[in-house]
Order: sequence, then structure tokens, then C-alpha cells
Amino acid sequence: MSTRFLDAAVNLLGPRGLTRDADLMEPWLTDWRGRYTGRALALASPANTQEVASLVKLCSQHRVPIVPQGGNSGMSGGATPDKSGETLLLSLRRMSAFRHWNEEARQVVCEAGVVLQTLHDAAEQRGLRFPLTLGGRGSATIGGLISTNAGGTQVLRHGTMRAQVLGLEAVLPNGEVFDTLAALKKDNRGFDLKQLLIGSEGTLGIVTAATLALAPKIAARRVMFAGLETVQQARRLLLFASARMGDTLEGFEIMPRTALESVLAYEPALRDPLTLPHQWYALFEVVADEAQAPSLEERATAVLAAALREGLLADATIATNETQAEALWALRDGISSAERAHGPAVQHDIAVPVERMPDFIVEASQMLEGRFTGTQAVAFGHLGDGNVHFHLRAPKGAKAGEWEETHGKAVSATVHDLVTQWGGSISAEHGIGQMKRDELARLGDPATLTILRSVKQALDPAGIMNPGKLVPLASRAPAP
Amino acid sequence: MSTRFLDAAVNLLGPRGLTRDADLMEPWLTDWRGRYTGRALALASPANTQEVASLVKLCSQHRVPIVPQGGNSGMSGGATPDKSGETLLLSLRRMSAFRHWNEEARQVVCEAGVVLQTLHDAAEQRGLRFPLTLGGRGSATIGGLISTNAGGTQVLRHGTMRAQVLGLEAVLPNGEVFDTLAALKKDNRGFDLKQLLIGSEGTLGIVTAATLALAPKIAARRVMFAGLETVQQARRLLLFASARMGDTLEGFEIMPRTALESVLAYEPALRDPLTLPHQWYALFEVVADEAQAPSLEERATAVLAAALREGLLADATIATNETQAEALWALRDGISSAERAHGPAVQHDIAVPVERMPDFIVEASQMLEGRFTGTQAVAFGHLGDGNVHFHLRAPKGAKAGEWEETHGKAVSATVHDLVTQWGGSISAEHGIGQMKRDELARLGDPATLTILRSVKQALDPAGIMNPGKLVPLASRAPAP
Repeated sequence: MSTRFLDAAVNLLGPRGLTRDADLMEPWLTDWRGRYTGRALALASPANTQEVASLVKLCSQHRVPIVPQGGNSGMSGGATPDKSGETLLLSLRRMSAFRHWNEEARQVVCEAGVVLQTLHDAAEQRGLRFPLTLGGRGSATIGGLISTNAGGTQVLRHGTMRAQVLGLEAVLPNGEVFDTLAALKKDNRGFDLKQLLIGSEGTLGIVTAATLALAPKIAARRVMFAGLETVQQARRLLLFASARMGDTLEGFEIMPRTALESVLAYEPALRDPLTLPHQWYALFEVVADEAQAPSLEERATAVLAAALREGLLADATIATNETQAEALWALRDGISSAERAHGPAVQHDIAVPVERMPDFIVEASQMLEGRFTGTQAVAFGHLGDGNVHFHLRAPKGAKAGEWEETHGKAVSATVHDLVTQWGGSISAEHGIGQMKRDELARLGDPATLTILRSVKQALDPAGIMNPGKLVPLASRAPAP
Repeated sequence: MSTRFLDAAVNLLGPRGLTRDADLMEPWLTDWRGRYTGRALALASPANTQEVASLVKLCSQHRVPIVPQGGNSGMSGGATPDKSGETLLLSLRRMSAFRHWNEEARQVVCEAGVVLQTLHDAAEQRGLRFPLTLGGRGSATIGGLISTNAGGTQVLRHGTMRAQVLGLEAVLPNGEVFDTLAALKKDNRGFDLKQLLIGSEGTLGIVTAATLALAPKIAARRVMFAGLETVQQARRLLLFASARMGDTLEGFEIMPRTALESVLAYEPALRDPLTLPHQWYALFEVVADEAQAPSLEERATAVLAAALREGLLADATIATNETQAEALWALRDGISSAERAHGPAVQHDIAVPVERMPDFIVEASQMLEGRFTGTQAVAFGHLGDGNVHFHLRAPKGAKAGEWEETHGKAVSATVHDLVTQWGGSISAEHGIGQMKRDELARLGDPATLTILRSVKQALDPAGIMNPGKLVPLASRAPAP
């Protein structure tokens, strides 16, 4: 049967559109973090929406499961096939056209395979910008960013990917094309099905294109870096800066001294921007348009001075040119790589209501370090969104791989239990994928899980769309 | 069976919570526009979410259909029961508490029955504001606004109701409570089911409470009123004002001379703000916070002067105090009532991509006035959102009721056909309800309709939630 399917698929896509070459497939069968490796029947690379639709119809007829993939830089194994070798890996990377720019309306229709950095560059050339960015921008694709509802460092001001998507084109599990690319600002013709596809990790359909909102280019920015005594101070500083800078405050990130130290050790070209060491740091950025640009420096300096007077920070610096600004951001962007180089650790991507995050970090760190002897908690990231990446470093001398294998599950269960008690989310911006599916089943609200499964069953009754990802299996019926 | 159900319901809700008194029920059985009148088994008014949940469970057991209702000021008959007398009318008006204010985070948790004006007032007392408003604010409830994803005159800057909802509590068709009131800024635990409930008009569940985003109070506003030669000029003025005023531009409304004249005739206290008559008018508002307030007047005046120089308007005035500002808005807010007083007409609430709206208005007006002799087209409203209310006035001397009865369906079909050809929406902000369900079935994209029905079937398999509303019936199977 798989031979018949493959023949039909080659026929449909041509030799460029389908390969079974092991060397060509290999890079795409392991996730970016190296946590999961799978196998695939073949790697399909359709060239346009019509090919995707025909291919999905074919898969539906032959009951061949599909794993859609963008840049393969996801954090939860959502784009990696299982080990059965029976699924079709469907890459959207060949679909990388900008279909239509509308500079006046500040919109672009772009295909799923467009890489984020490419979009940034193309928008800039048109005097515009796409206001979402993250570390993986050199590989992450628009389709992947939409399917995972990606976040990043500008969510505070601009929202997650969901907020940027004005219209969507997607191929549904039956091969039909859902098309709302003609972006209407208001449209109340029933349930907003576009919202259902955003963040559904390819389990309800395959995003093939989107109409995205663009923002005016900024004329100037100022990046500030403050040394703090406690993480609670970071929250107070955030409120203070937010009240004074309003919508011009685009991001507010925090990191502890331990994270800064690992970045400085890993990237010798970077320096500590402040003279004395501090327990915590806040990195934040304000932007201005043409009209506001001339007074930006003055306003930023005034806010820092006022915050110092009110005891909201211990010391601070402000980047006066782009090189300095990039150097400050490099301290933040370098944390993930530096932490990985530092040694074994278990990572979490969690959210709680913004105002509770500082207390959560303190309590969670104490609990984890107490329960797992010799470990060290490192929480960093998007305080302004109530979202941090919470790592627990292994004790000194622990063997990489072995320690995570032995303790990882217990560590994560402890973190996720606590997050759930605090009314938070076990996945703030990285999605569920295959990594957190069992934890979602264990900790998810039963009413929510019921709807989740019902919607999946309704839209994909044959279960061919990215099986094994996101949607927890139904709880087993009690033994008779 | 209905006696057993009613006994159980009275037992559950107490005498205050359930009535069958015809006089008490009567005001709620006809929609606000007087288009639909239905009957009901009883009127239930539960006091809290637990009572709603128990009642829905009871309805589910007895297969009693439920029609949820807020302020009964919807525009599409979505909250009016059918004539069977077998449905339960479920009012949320008793649930009108503010559960929790979080001024620091600028959030409020409020129950479904809170009236919009009450929320406006309560937010203002706390130095905040709720940035969504519309004509029906004295009766429209938060639950109704969420269920219909209401729009209004501040969508240009702040988005529709969907954009204000941070968290939701709803009772599902099986009586379970879906609760995401703990508003997380980021949460990627699967499909965003909250989005599914927003705008679903009570067909998937009953909204009982929501966590809403508030905005800082504005310190000053300026309202401008411009006379224009063509509606295309309005679009150019919008782009011009938008480029210069950015996010401080909160609304941009248009109206033709005919609409202004009917308002002036209907409301003798109002005056034409400009000396000479113009074919079209634009009404727009800019706002400022404390920091920007001192320069607002100057900036607004400069934009008007520049627009005049560039030939983007023929004449303009600017309100220099709140009384004048209110008088200008009264011209806009009075159109619906004035048009109703003027004589019979058929109304539509439509959207097309923003940049195409002026051309659409011209083409649609010509086509309709040509096809239906003696009629006059009046298009007014939210140009900035690509959404106008498109009325076709009956020929002079036409008999109210009779004319709409005879020609209404053909007029609406013509408008909706054209909107669909232009890639637009037959319901921009008023929803589908019972009024547009057949038109949605006729003109909706088949792939979209299929998902719509699948989702409804999955979440409400017994079909007890607001039956006959929004979701088009499946197309009939061909005769055997």
C-alpha cells in the first residue's frame, strides 16, 4: 500500500517535491534540541498550496499520517516524526514567496516557508517592520511560528504571533483549503476558525500562507540595563517604566547574576555592563517614531534617574548607539546557548499571572533546590509577559545525559505541579509537541481537555494530522 | 416531561430565579429591533456560575434547548427564542458583579450581566477606561458583547471585543465550567478554546464571566469633523491622519450628506457644524495621555491644516471642549434612530478590505439604486475598520413593513452577493443570529461551513445551545 501511495505522491509532486534519500531526510528527522529522533516514509516538499491540498487528500485516502515541518527549530518536538517510519514528513520550506505587499495597509501575504529573518529584512526595505522576534529567527518559518503561536521579546507591546495574523490559508485534514487571506478587520460570520488553527501545531491543518500585520519602522530605540537587588524589584521597575513609557516600552526581560556569568564565560567578547555585580538584572527597550525620536534619549534617561531615586534599581546603563544596544541584547540572547554549555540542566517554559511571577520564582527556586540537592535554579526571560524560562542546573560534576535521564521527569513534575497550583501554564510559548503531552494530560483542566479532544476528533476524525502531538489521548476507560 | 423539568429548575434556582409569568417574560421575547418575537417555556435568571452550570446540566438531561440572553439589544435576533415555546430563556442579567479589580495590571474580572455603561463608569472611577463603546452601551451586557464579538467606534485603535478578553469563564453544553479567568499573557497549552467561544453567539456555551483588559484613562481628546467631496477622499484623509497621528487616532467614521440631514431633521437640537453642505463627512477623534495632552490641540489643528492644504478635505471644524465634542458624536450616534424615523429601509452590516470600501460604496449604491427604482443608498460608519452600515431607503411614499416585506430579501441578496464578490463579510460586527443564517448558508465558503458545523456538533451534540442561531443547517442530502 505504501508503494502505491509513494508512486502517486511522486506523480503529484515530481522528483523535486518528494525524496526518500536518507541523507537528504536525515537533518530533518531530529529536533533542534536533539531530544527526539524519528523516521519517515518520505520527505515531501510541495511547491504551492494546491500541491499541499492534493497531497493531503492522497494521504487521507491512504491513511498516511503527516508531520508538517517549517524551520525545524521548535522546542517541544512538535515537528519530529515518531519512530514508526510510516509518517510522511511534509516540509513547507519550498513555499517561501511573498505573495503580496500592501504597504499602505501595512500588510503582507506571505507563504508558510518564509524565514522570519527574511521577513524582517524585506519589511525593513519597505520602511516597515514585523514586530515579533526571537533567537531562532534565522531558521524559524512563518508557518511554524503561527502553528506554535510563537512569542519572543516584543510580546509585551505587540502580542504573540496570534496578534500579528490577520488572515490565514490552511489545508484541512480532508484536503480542503481554508482561506481567509482577504484580511477583514471585522468579520463576525460565526466562530473564528482561524484562531483555532493558530497554535494547533499542525494537528488540525497545515498553514500554507498568512496575511500578517506590519508596524511602522521605528526611528530610534534606547536599550537599558539595570542592576537589581531582588526579582521583586524587577516587577516594581516594570510597573514604573510601563506607567511612564506606555506603549513605547517594547520589551522587559530579566536575568539573574548566574545567567549573566554563564553568558560572560561563554562569550568572551561580551562584558558586564555594570561596575558592581547585582543579584538580578532587567533589560528593557523603548522605541520612538520620527516625531518622538528627538526626545527619546532624554525621556529614557529621566525614567532611569527617577527609578534610581525611588530605589527601584541599584545601578543602570543606557546604550547610546546601536553597537551598545546590540551588545546588551547579546547578553540576553546568549543565555540559552551559554546555559547549555555550562552543563546539564532541565528546562521549562512557564507562565503565571504577571504580578505573581517574582514570588513564584523565589518559591520555586527554594523548593527545587531544596528537593534536588546540589542543584541551582536559573529563571530568566519575559517578565513583562509573566513568562520565564525556568532551568534547574544539575549538581556540579553530574554527568550530562545521565542526570537528566534520572531526575528530569521528577524535576519537571515538581515545576509543573507548582505552576498549576499558582494558576499558571506549563507551556507559555514553546507549545506542547510531544514533549509535554503527557504532562498536559496529567495537569490539564478536564473540561478543557474534553473540548480539545472533541475538536481534534471533529476536524481530523482519521487522526492523520501530526499524530501523537499536542492532543492528550483520552483517559483509559476503567477496567471492566 | 416539561413539568418535571420545571419543578427541578424551580427547586434549583428558587422563585427569584425562575418565572413563567407572561408579563415578566414579555419584554424579553421580542428583539430590540422588533423583528422577531418568540415564546419560552420559562425565564431563568440564575444568580451565579454554579447555578448556570446546574441548570445547563438539567437542560441537557431533559433535552430542553436554551437561549442565553444579555441586554436583549442584539441586531440579528440571536437572543430571541423561536415560536415553539419549548426553549428556556436564560437571562444573565442577575450576574452583574465585578468580581475583582486589578488596577496595577489594568484588569477586571466581571460577570456576564454587567452593563457596558456600568463598566465604563466603574473603570473611570479607578482612573482607567474600558476602550470599547457603542450606541447600546446602556443595555448591552459584557456577556452579550463577548458572545457577539461586538465592535463599535474604537475598533480602529483597540480592536473588537475579542481583543479586550484576556480570560473567560463559560458553562459548556454538558454543564462543565470552562475557566481561564486567571489571565495569562502567554499560554500555549493547545488550541485557544476561549477564542472559539468569543463570537459564538451562545451556540457553544454560555459566557458567565470574563477577565477584561483596561486602558489608562485619557487626559484629553479632540474630535474633528471634516466636509468632503467624495468618499474616496475620506480614505485618503484616513491614511493621512493615521500616518501623522498613529495610535492616538481612536476612531474614524464617515457619513453622507443624506444621513446628516436625517439626523438634523430628527434631532432639532443638533446643528450642521460646517457652513456649507458637503457630499460626505468624516468624524474622527485623537486622544492623549497626561504627557501628550498639552500639545494635542496644536497637533490636531496642524493635521487639519495640512490636510486642507493637500486637498484632502473641503472644510473642517474641531471641537474645543467636551460639549462640542459630544455634539459632534451625537451626529454620528443619531444616525440609526434618525434613519428609522425617516422611513422604511433595509439595513446591512458589511465589511470589505479597508482600502476597497470607498469604491465598494460607490458601486453598490449605483447598482442598488439602479435595480430598485426610487431607492436611495446610505452608507455610514466605521471606514477605518472597512465596515459600514449600508441602508437602502425605500422609494418615497412606500408603505413601512410592506415594502421591506416585498423587496427586503432581494435587496439583501443583492448587497450580500456583491460583498461576497468583493471578498467581504455579510456580517462585520452584528453577528449572524437568526437573521443571516440562511444567507451564511448560501454564501459561506463550503470548507468553512463544514468546520463550523463539525465544531458545533462536537461541542453540542444534543444541539441544546441556542438552536437555530448562527450555524447553518447541513445541506440536505439529495433525494434517494
